[in-house]
Amino acid sequence: MLRPNDFAPLPEALWQDLRTASTATLSSALARRGLRAVCMFGPKPLRTGMRCAGEAYTLRMLPTREDLGEPSFLANPDYPQRHAIEAIGPGQVLVVDARGDLRAGILGDIFTLRIARRGAVGLVTDGAVRDATGVAETGIAVFAAGAHPLQHTAIHIAADEQLPIQCGGVLVMPGDIIAGDDDGVVVIPRAIAAAVAADAAEQERLEGFVLRAIDGGSSIIGVYPPSDATRAAYEASKQV
Amino acid sequence: MLRPNDFAPLPEALWQDLRTASTATLSSALARRGLRAVCMFGPKPLRTGMRCAGEAYTLRMLPTREDLGEPSFLANPDYPQRHAIEAIGPGQVLVVDARGDLRAGILGDIFTLRIARRGAVGLVTDGAVRDATGVAETGIAVFAAGAHPLQHTAIHIAADEQLPIQCGGVLVMPGDIIAGDDDGVVVIPRAIAAAVAADAAEQERLEGFVLRAIDGGSSIIGVYPPSDATRAAYEASKQV
Amino acid sequence: MLRPNDFAPLPEALWQDLRTASTATLSSALARRGLRAVCMFGPKPLRTGMRCAGEAYTLRMLPTREDLGEPSFLANPDYPQRHAIEAIGPGQVLVVDARGDLRAGILGDIFTLRIARRGAVGLVTDGAVRDATGVAETGIAVFAAGAHPLQHTAIHIAADEQLPIQCGGVLVMPGDIIAGDDDGVVVIPRAIAAAVAADAAEQERLEGFVLRAIDGGSSIIGVYPPSDATRAAYEASKQV
Amino acid sequence: MLRPNDFAPLPEALWQDLRTASTATLSSALARRGLRAVCMFGPKPLRTGMRCAGEAYTLRMLPTREDLGEPSFLANPDYPQRHAIEAIGPGQVLVVDARGDLRAGILGDIFTLRIARRGAVGLVTDGAVRDATGVAETGIAVFAAGAHPLQHTAIHIAADEQLPIQCGGVLVMPGDIIAGDDDGVVVIPRAIAAAVAADAAEQERLEGFVLRAIDGGSSIIGVYPPSDATRAAYEASKQV
Amino acid sequence: MLRPNDFAPLPEALWQDLRTASTATLSSALARRGLRAVCMFGPKPLRTGMRCAGEAYTLRMLPTREDLGEPSFLANPDYPQRHAIEAIGPGQVLVVDARGDLRAGILGDIFTLRIARRGAVGLVTDGAVRDATGVAETGIAVFAAGAHPLQHTAIHIAADEQLPIQCGGVLVMPGDIIAGDDDGVVVIPRAIAAAVAADAAEQERLEGFVLRAIDGGSSIIGVYPPSDATRAAYEASKQV
Amino acid sequence: MLRPNDFAPLPEALWQDLRTASTATLSSALARRGLRAVCMFGPKPLRTGMRCAGEAYTLRMLPTREDLGEPSFLANPDYPQRHAIEAIGPGQVLVVDARGDLRAGILGDIFTLRIARRGAVGLVTDGAVRDATGVAETGIAVFAAGAHPLQHTAIHIAADEQLPIQCGGVLVMPGDIIAGDDDGVVVIPRAIAAAVAADAAEQERLEGFVLRAIDGGSSIIGVYPPSDATRAAYEASKQV
Repeated sequence: MLRPNDFAPLPEALWQDLRTASTATLSSALARRGLRAVCMFGPKPLRTGMRCAGEAYTLRMLPTREDLGEPSFLANPDYPQRHAIEAIGPGQVLVVDARGDLRAGILGDIFTLRIARRGAVGLVTDGAVRDATGVAETGIAVFAAGAHPLQHTAIHIAADEQLPIQCGGVLVMPGDIIAGDDDGVVVIPRAIAAAVAADAAEQERLEGFVLRAIDGGSSIIGVYPPSDATRAAYEASKQV
Repeated sequence: MLRPNDFAPLPEALWQDLRTASTATLSSALARRGLRAVCMFGPKPLRTGMRCAGEAYTLRMLPTREDLGEPSFLANPDYPQRHAIEAIGPGQVLVVDARGDLRAGILGDIFTLRIARRGAVGLVTDGAVRDATGVAETGIAVFAAGAHPLQHTAIHIAADEQLPIQCGGVLVMPGDIIAGDDDGVVVIPRAIAAAVAADAAEQERLEGFVLRAIDGGSSIIGVYPPSDATRAAYEASKQV
Repeated sequence: MLRPNDFAPLPEALWQDLRTASTATLSSALARRGLRAVCMFGPKPLRTGMRCAGEAYTLRMLPTREDLGEPSFLANPDYPQRHAIEAIGPGQVLVVDARGDLRAGILGDIFTLRIARRGAVGLVTDGAVRDATGVAETGIAVFAAGAHPLQHTAIHIAADEQLPIQCGGVLVMPGDIIAGDDDGVVVIPRAIAAAVAADAAEQERLEGFVLRAIDGGSSIIGVYPPSDATRAAYEASKQV
Repeated sequence: MLRPNDFAPLPEALWQDLRTASTATLSSALARRGLRAVCMFGPKPLRTGMRCAGEAYTLRMLPTREDLGEPSFLANPDYPQRHAIEAIGPGQVLVVDARGDLRAGILGDIFTLRIARRGAVGLVTDGAVRDATGVAETGIAVFAAGAHPLQHTAIHIAADEQLPIQCGGVLVMPGDIIAGDDDGVVVIPRAIAAAVAADAAEQERLEGFVLRAIDGGSSIIGVYPPSDATRAAYEASKQV
Repeated sequence: MLRPNDFAPLPEALWQDLRTASTATLSSALARRGLRAVCMFGPKPLRTGMRCAGEAYTLRMLPTREDLGEPSFLANPDYPQRHAIEAIGPGQVLVVDARGDLRAGILGDIFTLRIARRGAVGLVTDGAVRDATGVAETGIAVFAAGAHPLQHTAIHIAADEQLPIQCGGVLVMPGDIIAGDDDGVVVIPRAIAAAVAADAAEQERLEGFVLRAIDGGSSIIGVYPPSDATRAAYEASKQV
Repeated sequence: MLRPNDFAPLPEALWQDLRTASTATLSSALARRGLRAVCMFGPKPLRTGMRCAGEAYTLRMLPTREDLGEPSFLANPDYPQRHAIEAIGPGQVLVVDARGDLRAGILGDIFTLRIARRGAVGLVTDGAVRDATGVAETGIAVFAAGAHPLQHTAIHIAADEQLPIQCGGVLVMPGDIIAGDDDGVVVIPRAIAAAVAADAAEQERLEGFVLRAIDGGSSIIGVYPPSDATRAAYEASKQV
């Protein structure tokens, strides 16, 4: 029933814009379009300063049940957790719905390194990772709600891939744009991603201008939110 | 990846057995087979004393997002929340994965009455119902984690039906057997449901015998858990 | 900064309409006007079936601190918790911001009985009451998030009255309309209360019509949400 | 290190007083002596209106661990959960520290019936009971934080009896006095129990006098908290 | 009703003492005076090692409601969130009551930089900040309960300034002294701040002496808590 | 009833193995033996990268109660919190059951330094520490669930030492092996510790081999979990 994204290619400018836009600014740009249910609750960067931007590749975990067995499916390359690792591609972010359950890690260092080698740019989950020290060293941006030593099969079973999921309380459709930084993770619907990112990047430039004014001793009155005069001064500053 | 249940018909004795077996006894019978991750956390009977037993018909809710619109899909008979209401059949239990989110009701009195009229025997959700007073009067057993006045579209969007879901932290496959009473809701994998229910029903009879002994002043030592002598006395009591 | 309500009198029809409208229907009528942040989280009726509708009289509790003393202010008639009890009037609902803290009761049976005798129609708090058995017998509708034996001064200090407060996560302005039933408590901004209640009452009549159809075996398709034909049939039913 | 209670006998008047004193009044009498950390958080009566007063018999549950086995100890009469059932005596309350863990029931209907037959007057736990329907019918007052079908060994292992424990966040020493009603459960240190109960019973009589005044239309000013005049009127009323 | 602080000037020694006193030592000095409800729950330093000490300037957020509008008040210099930014002065700490709601940031980098430029020495909230990376670089000590990208108006509306508030479960009066470090944030009532800080600073010196003894291999017996002999040795050490 | 560990000496190889084994690998080795209820929930390293491995020395805190006094027991060397500090020995880890209550610190810098000087290798608690900055500098690995300035006596009273306890939801017996790193803390039953650690150390070596393969561009298929060929290649690599 949920209409899937068409996977029409995204403009290169989108990625350019996302490099300068913070999740705070992106969420404001989304809010101006009426979208507020887009900020995940739970996932935080594994190390301060991690940032990512990419296309969502979704994986859904369910609670496991003792009658479902275990050893057989772990060796099966079609097991969704395994399959997703080898299916994800460059510029994508693996988004794992773990229902906010932190009692096991959904991935460890080996699988995270593999998706990094396949070109993935991020891992986002409202569950936990394991081998957190190693995971943090794979060179990929990781946003998780915790760390836990136990392997995922103690708590979870991977159910399917590339369906719409929830993660951190937010709907994520395959192909949506995922952006993360120290404030957390924001989901940008694919259809409006380029416009939102462009708005946000421009807003960042304006806020940089404002920040320099405040840094120089300016009051916020008329400066932020910017009055017409401030906006004009900002526009003028761009001419230089 | 999760193997669906085959929907081979269930023996009539199953329902007979489930009428006498409490969820406590069923969960013990499941635990003896190694299954413990089968008791939901959250759903409670809307009124003390409600009981149900039936086949799971699953419905998955996801968090809504403002770009998904609203009025259009509510009138659409294929919208999963609508479709499930008119697809559910006699002896089934509508099990709704609401992610434990209590900030809106997933169904109200009108839809609950409709599934009752279609022969459904229960409604189970880890979310909330709305019109709780009316829902409780539909004659159907309802197990929910709360009540909330807001309509579901404020928080949820129905994603799909008859996929494996989680509800109350437990995996539910379409066709699994759902049993509920004052202790909460237990999920019995379809493949072992008849055996589990038969075990539980026999255990109930034994516990009834034990309860009468305790009521008469007996100590628990040798009586519960029953010693061989107690078991023999119980067996003898059945001859009468 | 928050503009207070003007206390222009409310039409008698409002109370009429609120007698037939459930909080579920009221919250739908509010949602149609874009208001969703109006359903409290926490307060539940002390006894199943309690209902209330009235004007908010607000009282704000803060965490107490040991340097603030205690015995002196409890005897002081100006202490806000005391003063509110003797200031509340007919048709009002005492709404107490207890910050969701359940570690003490904010009122007991004596004070609740007093506001009942003064004509108040309800007590709503996201904290706890004490003497819950006695409170439930005062004849007033009470919505609380719990019960706790300890007196309020162990945890709370009453700070002020008739300021805007939060209760159950919702903003409440003095004079707003408060409606409660088994689904919980809804806040209706005073300025739109009459229109919202009228809408909701009409919707209740329509839903009654629908409910009778469903009860008679009708499918929900075209019936709920009602198609034009269903609406016409409903309108026709009113002529009779 | 924690000094155990001496088990000097308690005066008969204590039980008399506790029959009229609510937990709200008892907690006030305790607060006047500086004791506030005496009200449990979690345990609620299984049915509205249940009340109990008795001496604490303590049982400590710990989280189980798979290496501790199971079948062997369940048949062992020295297993603390079993032993406590047959050791508890008339007028006692079984208080079970379940660490607030609600994922299994700590007792079911058979064992609860047994302690009732042994003369126990209550069961208090910050965990869950199982067979809640049956437990509620044993004639004993039961205060639990929930109901869950699973047997205790899935989550708990009984560690020891009659040591100091926590229950619902409150320290309980064997022999302390436990009082429960709709507001929850209060622990009264044994050494001061008689004095506290006497205070509370007198306070109940005073509050009954006040309640009749309020019911008759009196304001709370000067009446509650009672002025000297109100106290004098109350004393006079006792002469009659 | 809550008596406001008089804003009599504070001795310079207070700030001297607070530079050496940790929140742990301050909370002990407060506990010795019977004050324990003074340690916030929630706010943590945005970066390990941040410390602050200053006078509270309070700002109260309430849950927003869709009828309150938005754009108009954001440009209004009297809007309390705006006004507070330009009213706060040197040596003050902006303390924001966000009700523990972490679903939006209450301030971002621009406003935080502005209060830093105005001489404020800290920002404390039981809500979240946004632009956390930038906020951490403003040179001001920031204690928040989280980070979230969304702007405050999605969840909050600023209600008023310089009233008594709660923050992190603690009462804060305008002018109270706020101290924060890695253990969290402590509120010191203004009237006793100088005495408490002096006590704590002296205690820090004693603990430094003790710490050196322990570091040198001393047992804690007689050393901490210090015996008379240890205290004498400490006093002697001060003579040197 | 819980059978205590015999304190037979542990092989030196155990400590060797634990130096290379992560908690993730240890928990997998435990899971292969059927033990999953061994990973604490709550305790996290005070600083990223802290690791520890040692024998558990247990200390049980209970909620304090105002009738238990305070000054007298703090100076008493037999008070369990004091006694444990001076009883703990080389290679041990102090494990403190604080019931997950974070409203006070269970130890500060002075006592932590003392156990470090006595040769203890770690401090683990599901409560909070105080003086977190100083505690982190003692050179000992500290795993706590939070930091809080208040001294323990505000909330806790030490009840006893070297009994079985819970910590972070896991049973801990005196003498069990405790291992901690960035993923959290794992409890290894003493009787199987050497075998588990040996398994885990070997698994670490295999995972190191796998990690190098993945780093070099290998797919996970056949590599992790390792196929027979991968295992053979790993074995061959050891010959070199």
